[in-house]
Amino acid sequence: MDRIRRNERLAAMTRILVESPNKIFTLGTFCEMFGAAKSTLSEDIDILRGVFAQFHLGQLDTVTGAAGGVRFRPVLSPEDALVSVKDLAQMLAAPGRVLPGGFIYMADILARPDIMEKMGTIIASHFYRSEPDIILTMETKGIPIALMTAKAMGVPMVIVRRDSKVYEGPAVNINYLSGSGGRVETMSLSRRAVKEGQRALIVDDFMRAGGTIRGMVDMMREFAVTVVGVCVLASTQEPTKKRLEGVKSLLVMDGVDDATGTAIVRPAPWLQQAVEKGRL
Amino acid sequence: MDRIRRNERLAAMTRILVESPNKIFTLGTFCEMFGAAKSTLSEDIDILRGVFAQFHLGQLDTVTGAAGGVRFRPVLSPEDALVSVKDLAQMLAAPGRVLPGGFIYMADILARPDIMEKMGTIIASHFYRSEPDIILTMETKGIPIALMTAKAMGVPMVIVRRDSKVYEGPAVNINYLSGSGGRVETMSLSRRAVKEGQRALIVDDFMRAGGTIRGMVDMMREFAVTVVGVCVLASTQEPTKKRLEGVKSLLVMDGVDDATGTAIVRPAPWLQQAVEKGRL
Repeated sequence: MDRIRRNERLAAMTRILVESPNKIFTLGTFCEMFGAAKSTLSEDIDILRGVFAQFHLGQLDTVTGAAGGVRFRPVLSPEDALVSVKDLAQMLAAPGRVLPGGFIYMADILARPDIMEKMGTIIASHFYRSEPDIILTMETKGIPIALMTAKAMGVPMVIVRRDSKVYEGPAVNINYLSGSGGRVETMSLSRRAVKEGQRALIVDDFMRAGGTIRGMVDMMREFAVTVVGVCVLASTQEPTKKRLEGVKSLLVMDGVDDATGTAIVRPAPWLQQAVEKGRL
Repeated sequence: MDRIRRNERLAAMTRILVESPNKIFTLGTFCEMFGAAKSTLSEDIDILRGVFAQFHLGQLDTVTGAAGGVRFRPVLSPEDALVSVKDLAQMLAAPGRVLPGGFIYMADILARPDIMEKMGTIIASHFYRSEPDIILTMETKGIPIALMTAKAMGVPMVIVRRDSKVYEGPAVNINYLSGSGGRVETMSLSRRAVKEGQRALIVDDFMRAGGTIRGMVDMMREFAVTVVGVCVLASTQEPTKKRLEGVKSLLVMDGVDDATGTAIVRPAPWLQQAVEKGRL
């Protein structure tokens, strides 16, 4: 093989690191791949770190210790995150999205890989420090944002079902109070889906009173799994008293503007505060 | 701003192109971003194309014409695709995956972002030429692989539901025959979800007799949407007569080995043929 030049190596390393977010690659892996010395690759990493920072392309960390190496995280700056969430708020407030009953049509946005990847990256940026082993969500609409969060964090996703399925094997079923009215519903999770002692980050699309999310927290208690955080794409301002405290939301929905027939949606206040603090 | 060196530019361009697969970036976009001349950027692209090819990192195309520019597609070579699908077959054939009733436990694998991204990329590699506008799937288990296919192709995903939901607005419901026994079930799709004249690629996790997929094809006919292809992660060998012809599958499941109690799973024959033909 021809000797590989630095600029080729940098491009290839970028592609490889970006494909596997939050995964630690040892320098040795790259040494073998490119036939280069560790010192050379250390310089490469320094250059990449600078480029990524300059163009807001994510964060490259050098992890020390026995399992050390280099790791890419697609973090967004608080400013970029706020802009993305504002853009999304504007999309949701566009005319024609309010459905009969005052519901907001979001299904198209919730299934857009590019938008969900951006939002999943914002969630990951905030929750890397919580070090979850899994991202837990409830079928159906929460799956894309949960999957993209899982991708950014380099961990598996786990889906709670509305009823148990023969092809998921023995399952734990729990009842929970759904909706502000307090209807009793059931959720189900395969006994194989999670392991005792794991750390779960709950990610879902929407929260009103928080009953479903409360159910997922209770479910994790059944499995002896620690919930390290809860984040939803959007939550409603009302009811202000939720069934669970401490849920992070990217968007807040204040209702429908009767004059224009459009949704009133805004970025959650903590995102603005993140800009002031200088980190998500 | 300091003048940006070639190696920095290459790393930044790689990150940007890889983040938005199948999207055409004009040279002008990069000229502005890096303050460099078009001729310089053309050289950059040539270098990147070579690096991506050398290390099997995907394909960089120059698209000519008025809307021309450069586009990244995360295509896999047929050899790499076959290896990935073989690895997955091996995972599914591991001991302990056969459930009561002869079902294979796949839920953990279907929710792994890294594996589903790989499989979605294989599907995209085969179907780029069909130029779909949307990736259509049925809730729930098909969503991760469909979303990752949609990401690789740079198009939205659309999810068919088992019943209509107030938050999706007016919907079209159709009945279909599910399972080899022929139970009648209903599927539902919001009227806003697709537009007449669009081109849909159907992607799902699993096919036995093909009733559900046949239902999705019928649904698309209701919306005057053209189905340009159908691909599933796994299909069963039996029944050999499916409700729909021409469905591509990555894996074939032959059943359960009674002696070992493990699943018999293999890559679909067309993947081997793709290796011989030299393209997916």
